[in-house]
Amino acid sequence: MFTEKMLAHRTKNMGSSAIREILKVLSRPGIVSLAGGMPAPEAFPMEKMDVLCTRVLEKHGTAALQYGTTEGFVPLKEALAEYLEENSIVTKPEHINITTGSQGVLDALGKVLISPDDAVAVEAPTYLGALQAFNPYGPRYVQMETDEDGLIPDSMEKVIKEHRPKLVYLVPTFQNPTGRTIPLERRKRIADIAKSTDTLVIEDDPYGQLRYRGQPVTPIAAMAPDHVVYCGSFSKVFAPGLRVGFYVAPDLVEEWLIRAKQGVDLHTSSFSQALAAEFLSGGFFKEHLPKIVELYRPKQEAMLEAMEQYFPDGFTWSKPEGGMFIWAEGPEGVDTMRIYDEAINNNVAFVPGKYFYTEEGAGASTMRLNFTMADEETIKAAVGRLAEAIKKVV
Amino acid sequence: MFTEKMLAHRTKNMGSSAIREILKVLSRPGIVSLAGGMPAPEAFPMEKMDVLCTRVLEKHGTAALQYGTTEGFVPLKEALAEYLEENSIVTKPEHINITTGSQGVLDALGKVLISPDDAVAVEAPTYLGALQAFNPYGPRYVQMETDEDGLIPDSMEKVIKEHRPKLVYLVPTFQNPTGRTIPLERRKRIADIAKSTDTLVIEDDPYGQLRYRGQPVTPIAAMAPDHVVYCGSFSKVFAPGLRVGFYVAPDLVEEWLIRAKQGVDLHTSSFSQALAAEFLSGGFFKEHLPKIVELYRPKQEAMLEAMEQYFPDGFTWSKPEGGMFIWAEGPEGVDTMRIYDEAINNNVAFVPGKYFYTEEGAGASTMRLNFTMADEETIKAAVGRLAEAIKKVV
Repeated sequence: MFTEKMLAHRTKNMGSSAIREILKVLSRPGIVSLAGGMPAPEAFPMEKMDVLCTRVLEKHGTAALQYGTTEGFVPLKEALAEYLEENSIVTKPEHINITTGSQGVLDALGKVLISPDDAVAVEAPTYLGALQAFNPYGPRYVQMETDEDGLIPDSMEKVIKEHRPKLVYLVPTFQNPTGRTIPLERRKRIADIAKSTDTLVIEDDPYGQLRYRGQPVTPIAAMAPDHVVYCGSFSKVFAPGLRVGFYVAPDLVEEWLIRAKQGVDLHTSSFSQALAAEFLSGGFFKEHLPKIVELYRPKQEAMLEAMEQYFPDGFTWSKPEGGMFIWAEGPEGVDTMRIYDEAINNNVAFVPGKYFYTEEGAGASTMRLNFTMADEETIKAAVGRLAEAIKKVV
Repeated sequence: MFTEKMLAHRTKNMGSSAIREILKVLSRPGIVSLAGGMPAPEAFPMEKMDVLCTRVLEKHGTAALQYGTTEGFVPLKEALAEYLEENSIVTKPEHINITTGSQGVLDALGKVLISPDDAVAVEAPTYLGALQAFNPYGPRYVQMETDEDGLIPDSMEKVIKEHRPKLVYLVPTFQNPTGRTIPLERRKRIADIAKSTDTLVIEDDPYGQLRYRGQPVTPIAAMAPDHVVYCGSFSKVFAPGLRVGFYVAPDLVEEWLIRAKQGVDLHTSSFSQALAAEFLSGGFFKEHLPKIVELYRPKQEAMLEAMEQYFPDGFTWSKPEGGMFIWAEGPEGVDTMRIYDEAINNNVAFVPGKYFYTEEGAGASTMRLNFTMADEETIKAAVGRLAEAIKKVV
């Protein structure tokens, strides 16, 4: 029989599934989940899908069903060049590559760059999906410090000098899990550090368009294009089920990322890419994005208000200008795993923050709350019940 | 600046791009390509796509656009369970996993099973895409001998005993590149060897439904379900651009393959999966498959007739009952790379066979010809011009 012995050495890195156990309770009836990270189904442009499908079939015909190049569907790359330019990233369509979700480029980056025991620098806390993409390649994670303005550039510089990481992974705007955004001055400093130390920075930006207040901040990629891989996605502004992401990378990295992707899936779904191309170039995106923003803004406000009203003293939390998450932190000594058990009894779920740290023992008093899925009344009631659970434990 | 030094050790395995150079000439105007491996666009059910899209949106709604599970879209898994049972593979929907093309499971198999320098046994010649999927994981390939009936079981047994490969990769039906099919008696023997030596066999079956003559042969997976990963695909019977493949695997392997896929793309396009589900369960597949078969059969006959008519003495070739390829072999000493240059001058392209071998120097006198893309008259003329090129060189 087939046994564990037959697995590759690298599979031992893919073992951790603790968070899956946590998420299993979500299917229990009556539970309100603030644990997820999914867009609300009402955020999908369902009323436009018929038209989009018809356009794809009329305009692209068999090309939407045929094999395509690994680099991606040209009409989508062309539409993205315009979109990116409006977001301060100036590049040519031929330097925009399409991936199967942003997850696809994270996997390719791991494959192409990380030899076992290579250092990879991540924010503390960081995005779990990136760790899942990198883990099989055997990195040694090094945490960089953050505060309410996200990554602290001095910490990044120190980590780079001490560990020479193969890559620095960042979600600079409305980060998952904290919702925090790195301000412009820090971004300039991060770009300078990347250049002066010749370090590759991954700027993962799936949430940047979900801005409910304030002004957009220039991407780091715009300030250090030769040192940054900029990753975007249609998952939060169109539909995650299409699995369409994209990236812009320095030349040599790009060449290898394409080759890695070819071995993994040949190319991303042509039909999905064609739908995204029509969504972007046909004016649907510009019409639809404000609706998503107007859907999520009151949800976020409801959550922040309820936290203000119900959460006990000693707790603090982020007040992001956009994104999908609020990050809360209890006073020292609080264990959000214990709060979690109590919260489940009260029919509310969240993600204990420790899962977003690469160092054992970090983040014990933190938690991530998502506000995109439930409606405002449900959010308020759930935050109230969560606060009850907290008070029981603290 | 970013330099080659910064790449992971494994990327050195991903270097070979010789065949890409070969394929670049295909875009030259006037060239008839017998080199590709794509389905004819006329084989796509374009006239049904409107109805399929409408059904997907009406029946599955936001689920077709939302994040899904890594394991796959349940209605598709249910439809596949029925489809597989009709093809002698009896399993439950929950044991059928969806991948981003079959390429997706090949990558996951490599990631989960192959440590650097592990032996991987492949047919000589074998499918290039599988090598591209496995290469980054650093396998040591061991070739198994084949004849006109495909893999020779004794050679497989010898290779297993000498090298203890982590996996044996096979395309038993209408193989790419040879078009050959392993007959039932050999399959029984292969299943027995897999069981008695406790070896994992990958049965990659993208072409099995493209049968123009003769009777289906039972899959090896049906005879040794605990030792075979059976991989199927919608690429040749529906549309490759959707990137939907599937597999059935022994339990422990399955568990790790799912985990590997999660890090790579989270899941396969929900919209693509929903289209495939409706194609299969709505009766479209059964109505459409005979049209594909009737489209390709005369193309294959045209190619075989033209080869009979034009090819010089000393050349032999496969006469498959289905699939997409004919495999030709010249007398010893013939170099199909030289024929290739002459053929390009004559405006015909094919793939020199050496690219399908893992051992240097093997297959110098072989070539792969594809018959799905061109029409019958074009195929006949192209084979005539190819024969002229051969006669010049031989």
